[in-house]
Amino acid sequence: MLSDPNNLTVTPPPAEPAPGSFAADQALGGVSDRDATRQARAQSVGQRPGTLTVREGSLPPRLFLISYDDTFFQETEYTSYDELLDFFRAHPELRHWIDVRGYNDLALMERLMQDFNLHPLQMEDVLGDYQRAKVELFDDNRLFLVSRMTDFTPLLEIDDDQLSIFTGPNYVISFQDDYDDCLDSVRSRIRSGFSKIKQKPVLYLAYALTDVVLDHYYPTMAAIGDYIETLEERIFNGRSDRRVLNRILHIKKDIVRFRRLVYPEREKIAEILRMHDEVIPEDIKLYFKDCYDHAIQAMDLAESYRESVSSLVDLYLSDQSNRMNEVMKVLTIISSIFIPLSFVVGLYGMNFQREAPDGTINHLNMPELYEPWGYPALLALLALIVTGQLIYFYRKGWLTNGR
Amino acid sequence: MLSDPNNLTVTPPPAEPAPGSFAADQALGGVSDRDATRQARAQSVGQRPGTLTVREGSLPPRLFLISYDDTFFQETEYTSYDELLDFFRAHPELRHWIDVRGYNDLALMERLMQDFNLHPLQMEDVLGDYQRAKVELFDDNRLFLVSRMTDFTPLLEIDDDQLSIFTGPNYVISFQDDYDDCLDSVRSRIRSGFSKIKQKPVLYLAYALTDVVLDHYYPTMAAIGDYIETLEERIFNGRSDRRVLNRILHIKKDIVRFRRLVYPEREKIAEILRMHDEVIPEDIKLYFKDCYDHAIQAMDLAESYRESVSSLVDLYLSDQSNRMNEVMKVLTIISSIFIPLSFVVGLYGMNFQREAPDGTINHLNMPELYEPWGYPALLALLALIVTGQLIYFYRKGWLTNGR
Amino acid sequence: MLSDPNNLTVTPPPAEPAPGSFAADQALGGVSDRDATRQARAQSVGQRPGTLTVREGSLPPRLFLISYDDTFFQETEYTSYDELLDFFRAHPELRHWIDVRGYNDLALMERLMQDFNLHPLQMEDVLGDYQRAKVELFDDNRLFLVSRMTDFTPLLEIDDDQLSIFTGPNYVISFQDDYDDCLDSVRSRIRSGFSKIKQKPVLYLAYALTDVVLDHYYPTMAAIGDYIETLEERIFNGRSDRRVLNRILHIKKDIVRFRRLVYPEREKIAEILRMHDEVIPEDIKLYFKDCYDHAIQAMDLAESYRESVSSLVDLYLSDQSNRMNEVMKVLTIISSIFIPLSFVVGLYGMNFQREAPDGTINHLNMPELYEPWGYPALLALLALIVTGQLIYFYRKGWLTNGR
Amino acid sequence: MLSDPNNLTVTPPPAEPAPGSFAADQALGGVSDRDATRQARAQSVGQRPGTLTVREGSLPPRLFLISYDDTFFQETEYTSYDELLDFFRAHPELRHWIDVRGYNDLALMERLMQDFNLHPLQMEDVLGDYQRAKVELFDDNRLFLVSRMTDFTPLLEIDDDQLSIFTGPNYVISFQDDYDDCLDSVRSRIRSGFSKIKQKPVLYLAYALTDVVLDHYYPTMAAIGDYIETLEERIFNGRSDRRVLNRILHIKKDIVRFRRLVYPEREKIAEILRMHDEVIPEDIKLYFKDCYDHAIQAMDLAESYRESVSSLVDLYLSDQSNRMNEVMKVLTIISSIFIPLSFVVGLYGMNFQREAPDGTINHLNMPELYEPWGYPALLALLALIVTGQLIYFYRKGWLTNGR
Amino acid sequence: MLSDPNNLTVTPPPAEPAPGSFAADQALGGVSDRDATRQARAQSVGQRPGTLTVREGSLPPRLFLISYDDTFFQETEYTSYDELLDFFRAHPELRHWIDVRGYNDLALMERLMQDFNLHPLQMEDVLGDYQRAKVELFDDNRLFLVSRMTDFTPLLEIDDDQLSIFTGPNYVISFQDDYDDCLDSVRSRIRSGFSKIKQKPVLYLAYALTDVVLDHYYPTMAAIGDYIETLEERIFNGRSDRRVLNRILHIKKDIVRFRRLVYPEREKIAEILRMHDEVIPEDIKLYFKDCYDHAIQAMDLAESYRESVSSLVDLYLSDQSNRMNEVMKVLTIISSIFIPLSFVVGLYGMNFQREAPDGTINHLNMPELYEPWGYPALLALLALIVTGQLIYFYRKGWLTNGR
Repeated sequence: MLSDPNNLTVTPPPAEPAPGSFAADQALGGVSDRDATRQARAQSVGQRPGTLTVREGSLPPRLFLISYDDTFFQETEYTSYDELLDFFRAHPELRHWIDVRGYNDLALMERLMQDFNLHPLQMEDVLGDYQRAKVELFDDNRLFLVSRMTDFTPLLEIDDDQLSIFTGPNYVISFQDDYDDCLDSVRSRIRSGFSKIKQKPVLYLAYALTDVVLDHYYPTMAAIGDYIETLEERIFNGRSDRRVLNRILHIKKDIVRFRRLVYPEREKIAEILRMHDEVIPEDIKLYFKDCYDHAIQAMDLAESYRESVSSLVDLYLSDQSNRMNEVMKVLTIISSIFIPLSFVVGLYGMNFQREAPDGTINHLNMPELYEPWGYPALLALLALIVTGQLIYFYRKGWLTNGR
Repeated sequence: MLSDPNNLTVTPPPAEPAPGSFAADQALGGVSDRDATRQARAQSVGQRPGTLTVREGSLPPRLFLISYDDTFFQETEYTSYDELLDFFRAHPELRHWIDVRGYNDLALMERLMQDFNLHPLQMEDVLGDYQRAKVELFDDNRLFLVSRMTDFTPLLEIDDDQLSIFTGPNYVISFQDDYDDCLDSVRSRIRSGFSKIKQKPVLYLAYALTDVVLDHYYPTMAAIGDYIETLEERIFNGRSDRRVLNRILHIKKDIVRFRRLVYPEREKIAEILRMHDEVIPEDIKLYFKDCYDHAIQAMDLAESYRESVSSLVDLYLSDQSNRMNEVMKVLTIISSIFIPLSFVVGLYGMNFQREAPDGTINHLNMPELYEPWGYPALLALLALIVTGQLIYFYRKGWLTNGR
Repeated sequence: MLSDPNNLTVTPPPAEPAPGSFAADQALGGVSDRDATRQARAQSVGQRPGTLTVREGSLPPRLFLISYDDTFFQETEYTSYDELLDFFRAHPELRHWIDVRGYNDLALMERLMQDFNLHPLQMEDVLGDYQRAKVELFDDNRLFLVSRMTDFTPLLEIDDDQLSIFTGPNYVISFQDDYDDCLDSVRSRIRSGFSKIKQKPVLYLAYALTDVVLDHYYPTMAAIGDYIETLEERIFNGRSDRRVLNRILHIKKDIVRFRRLVYPEREKIAEILRMHDEVIPEDIKLYFKDCYDHAIQAMDLAESYRESVSSLVDLYLSDQSNRMNEVMKVLTIISSIFIPLSFVVGLYGMNFQREAPDGTINHLNMPELYEPWGYPALLALLALIVTGQLIYFYRKGWLTNGR
Repeated sequence: MLSDPNNLTVTPPPAEPAPGSFAADQALGGVSDRDATRQARAQSVGQRPGTLTVREGSLPPRLFLISYDDTFFQETEYTSYDELLDFFRAHPELRHWIDVRGYNDLALMERLMQDFNLHPLQMEDVLGDYQRAKVELFDDNRLFLVSRMTDFTPLLEIDDDQLSIFTGPNYVISFQDDYDDCLDSVRSRIRSGFSKIKQKPVLYLAYALTDVVLDHYYPTMAAIGDYIETLEERIFNGRSDRRVLNRILHIKKDIVRFRRLVYPEREKIAEILRMHDEVIPEDIKLYFKDCYDHAIQAMDLAESYRESVSSLVDLYLSDQSNRMNEVMKVLTIISSIFIPLSFVVGLYGMNFQREAPDGTINHLNMPELYEPWGYPALLALLALIVTGQLIYFYRKGWLTNGR
Repeated sequence: MLSDPNNLTVTPPPAEPAPGSFAADQALGGVSDRDATRQARAQSVGQRPGTLTVREGSLPPRLFLISYDDTFFQETEYTSYDELLDFFRAHPELRHWIDVRGYNDLALMERLMQDFNLHPLQMEDVLGDYQRAKVELFDDNRLFLVSRMTDFTPLLEIDDDQLSIFTGPNYVISFQDDYDDCLDSVRSRIRSGFSKIKQKPVLYLAYALTDVVLDHYYPTMAAIGDYIETLEERIFNGRSDRRVLNRILHIKKDIVRFRRLVYPEREKIAEILRMHDEVIPEDIKLYFKDCYDHAIQAMDLAESYRESVSSLVDLYLSDQSNRMNEVMKVLTIISSIFIPLSFVVGLYGMNFQREAPDGTINHLNMPELYEPWGYPALLALLALIVTGQLIYFYRKGWLTNGR
């Protein structure tokens, strides 16, 4: 009846090209924010307030229950909601984490809503398409928390999933539409038995879940930072083409998107910190204060990267301009040297003839042509012109690559 | 006397070219904000405060009355205001939605104002040219709500109409100057009988109307997002010309305009949430809080698109610069190859003759001309020059298209 | 003794070139904010606080008195201040608007200050060079209001004059240094007898004056909007030269200046709305709230235009760049076609002679020269080169004008 | 013993080149903010809090005492601090302004600190290198005011000196490290005997000193405004070279610096206005409110100039681009005309000979060469080509200077 | 047992190239914010809240104890923590500064935490990777202060280390992961015996430590300012190449980073100033207020430099554009002069022969060729063309270097 919790095999994600590799190019999105468009289109379907609907393409739900107190621990995947509920109700002395993954069972969702007295509007936020991070108080002292879990895909997109958490007197219910998540570290901390989670009230578990999501912002940021470095190197190695600008703007879009994700996270925690001590005791607040520092530092990092990206755009444009300059210099040097030379040799190609048809000799007509030293002297003159110009261009620094 | 409410034929809008199509080009406005100018000009006509006037070109009013309670439902279009009023007054136990479409009857407007005790200044806002979204409290606990309903036209304009709502103890009066609107989903929800609207006080109806307007912002945003993608593809396919910049700036203007529309909407709802619980009960506020989330998300989307558009401008300018670069490279490659060649062949076109008129032979004068291998060697030299330059340009990457 | 108020001839302003016309060009100011400099210089003269001085070049004062109550109305221009005062004091039961136009009589100004108990510092603000819009409370419940009346001159300047208003229990004193103003609509509303002004306390008159100034911002904005459209059309018709940039930046300066004018106006009204109900009764506040909406909408319009202007700058710069592109393309096409051709014909101009001076024939030396098909074949080759290049350029789209 | 106050000879500053003149060029600083660097370096010397040290290079102190009441007035420069103190202590019924110019006497500074009960930290601010404008309350109701006096030097630098003021029950002590200052107008107002300063408490003197410093911001601003106009004219007269950009950026730096100076001034006065009425009586606050308006207007002016300067940068860059355009057009016109001509004449320079060495005549070989009309026809053809191109360029508007 | 405190040898840092030198170029980082990335990566390791871990690569701890009161002073480095604790506990009448340098001993860190009752979360902040400056109150009236000490390395990086301070009733514990620091000036002030530190409570020591860190921001700023000047000079001397842009952007990144460091410092001190007087007495607050001024001035300086850097970017880009202009001018001048000349000489190279093969003479065919004055006249013509063009270019100002 019960699956063995020790058998919970979390399928590893398939090997993917590293985000820095330019191999993933074909599938790379552009600068337009397609996520935003998708989101706008999804929102526009027009949910009626207070009517539960499940987002298309969501997964069939899996139910996990982690029950623990200072000494006890049990982790189970239930295939039947009723059994879960029975166990939950039979053990009011334990603390429980009901971990729902996948939404695609409207009836189940509605039962959860009723059994745990969740507000329909909040349940809509859970099942809906997109909800900014937020916290809401309901039933006087219960919390409804929405967090957004991020991931940086090899296609340079920020992928974000929603984690919704309801707290109760001795339980936490979490909802997400994904079987794999970033909460495993919390699970293993409870499992390990040494964690504070086991000693503290369930609010601490809510905090731990919130915190672990925030912690997962840093690898996303680090991946973005690495990619910015890759782009910078490309520009410096003179391999910047227009795809590089595209990527720069793409990363800029990601950073903007990331800020849009983190900013409400900070707001959320600030609101938690402002809540009455009866809702959130002072000692739990201390932990959330730590969260707050993390959220601010994530914002700082995003700002930092934003500056870097805007510097990259400056570099790219200046590089583009430099390259134009280089092209112009080649043209100018070659034209400036050879056009005058062409004139000189053209001069001696004219048909001013010393001997007029009537036999008279016109000594003014290019006497050089008839002197033994004429041709060598001319060649010397041409060499002189070339040398003079080369010296001029060298002095201007146009012959060295650096400028 | 009464038209059959089931016969309410809503004329479908004529088939229009898709917003993405470039066919609509002739009529496309520019970057200057003509709506703003029109608005400024309209405002400048100088309404005297407290004097009702009807905007030129507004439609003759049509009066609809939806009356309902938990069980009852009736939807009627009245041709006579008196009959409407009679029915309304005869049924104080019902909840009513008086839906006025079209303003062009000053006498009727003044009667409505007096019968429902509306404030002249607010009535002016209803009939005037442009009013930002706002909420005002009057008669201690009645609400006056202004919303702006948006539409994205095939000409890439954001078209916005005003919806003004007054609440009363058991009724809601809505005003708009358009027969077709985006409120049909609310009507059909009441009609269907299952909606919460029928169980909740009229304030919930006011909320539903406000919410449906907000929900209609998303398709507008999605249309803008689609169009941004179209423009991006055009630039990437190398088909960007100056009209593309015009469109980008046009869309940017639209987004700015959209933000101007949504921002007061958010303010409005925030003000509603700050109102006293006696005016708006806590449970209705919960629904408005949901609205607030939607307004913030619409703002977020607008910000997102704004970033995308500014990236598009960067892309466009860089593309323009790239193209100049390409032109210069063609010029430079061809000039650099052929100008030196021309010099060489010019050299051998000079009239330095081996045999002076007096018959003496000057062996210094271009001996190559007289050698059997002279001409082939020269051709070989020319070929060498060309090859050398091509290698140089290839190494610089100027021969490949990508840079 | 009294001039006939019905004879008040308001001299119409002289016919001026339309703001959109480029005829006014000579006198057009530049991008530097000369008004600001003038203002800075004026302020720097160093008024001693509390010492009344009259701005140089101000007009000799004219005194108007409009006295009214619900039924009575009288409008008079007084040439003697004493007579005005006598009438004013003799009729405490009436409401009065003392309308002072022109400051150039220090003695009169000081008498006004004393008779109506105005504060010296405020009187300085009245007579001084420039005062932002503001409101101050004095004598516990009297208001001192400064508004700035704008005008858009044919030279594309925003001209602004100051209107200072003091309220009293049954009177309003207004000061301005101009005989013609934008307050005529208020005057005629009082004259007409139907206006609310006659029924409401004098505070309503103060409101009406404030509002009419705000209303006059819209024609200014509309004129700016029209001019932006003119500029945009010029750029699109390819008639943009550097004067266009100058005008764009000029208009931008005007808009910035306009925002500097409107922003304190909004602040002023917000401060009025925050005042205690005993100073400004709730029902008058409702009217000021309407003003507030207008001020915000004027700010919105200014923001809108600012965006338009910044888009215009983008358009202009891109246009400039486009034109450079076009020049380069002409150069490149012509050079690319003819420079290779020149090389080919130069080749056949070389003096490699088939017949060496010693009579031996070198068959390697350009045999084409001696073949009957040589010359036509060469011409065909040249034509081929040209055709090939034209096809290449056509494919690149360089021959069509559009790019 | 006492120097005669009527003999106070204020040495006039040496004749300097006008700020607008480009003669001062050599000494002109660049865009880097050397003042800031100097300030940073000075601060980094590491003063120990609470230890008085005197800034290197400060002047030996001169002590002035102005004592006055409604009727009495005496102005003296003391060479001995003890005598000053004796007089001051002997006349508690008078109001005193102790005016200390120059810091370079640590012992004297410490005596002043002890005799007038000044706080060591504040005294450090007085003697230190740089202190933003601020106000601090000490001893419950005494004020410590720091103002910054500005000057616009001929080298386009904003020179600022610090004025520190301590108030006491019947005295004001001012410190500055300069013998000449901008406070003379206050002194002469006291001297003249008509000023309000003589009738009001010493706080009014503190106000007057603060105000006169603020008033001196306007000439600085006006000088900057004048200089912006000079630069604009230079660009318009086509005399803009790279030095002009340098100056524009220099002025921009000055304006930024000016804002940094004025902003805390505004903050300072706002804080004064928020102080308790017992510290600053309501009627003195009214005067400070006037100051506040001035500070805001100075900020407004600075913003205004900032916009102007950024427009100047746009103008300059567009001018630079225009000039490049012009260069390109000359190149293109000349190349486009003569390169094809060169080809044509090259064509007829080829050695396709009618008469082959074997005497056969090839009639296909350039028959024009042998026709009587050949040469004139060719010249006509060349003229035609030239004319055609000139028409083309004229139509493009490239021959007129304007574009 | 005890090392001699007088023997504390602080190893001087190795001689480093001056920050301004371009010798350090190889190691110079780019515009991407690698510190931020490193920080993000470090944070992402996922510390479990409440579990102490020591950052990899941290130093083995050294323990210093400075004990003092008004008269007593002792400074010791302890090798055994127990001895330190014994001395500390044996002298509750003294004030103590426990100065811990290096974290690499988890057991010791945990003992410190328990013995001095430090909060685990705060201890985590101490040992963690990066913590913004902040202040937290714990145990009701104890302070936990985090400061960031900056250094400007020769590689133009801002190096920052964390200083964490806990206060207690009669002690201060400071933690840092570096043996050398910027606190020596505080130590020597205590040693010297004259400092206020010895007379004031330990909070004053906490202030002194905070202040000395702030004071060390100024040399960092001054170094940045110097480097900006170096860069500016390079651009003006025409030695700007792309490395210069890289450095400009690098410095910009540093300034942004600096602001990120200083901003929370200001927040921290503002929060201290807002704390209750029982936690921080009024007279200590006065000193912190001084700190606050310093923090604001550091922010001001950073803003100032930011403006300078953005001006540098403008200068650089304009310089780049100028150089392109110069290249184009050389090309245009040489081409414009020689291309027409080439045409003319090509003209006389044509084979229009006076004497047709049949012996008839065609007098229209370039009669100049057969005139005695022909060749000199042609040379004169060529000279004329050159002169004319040179005059034209001179008038345009293209021959002078300045434009």
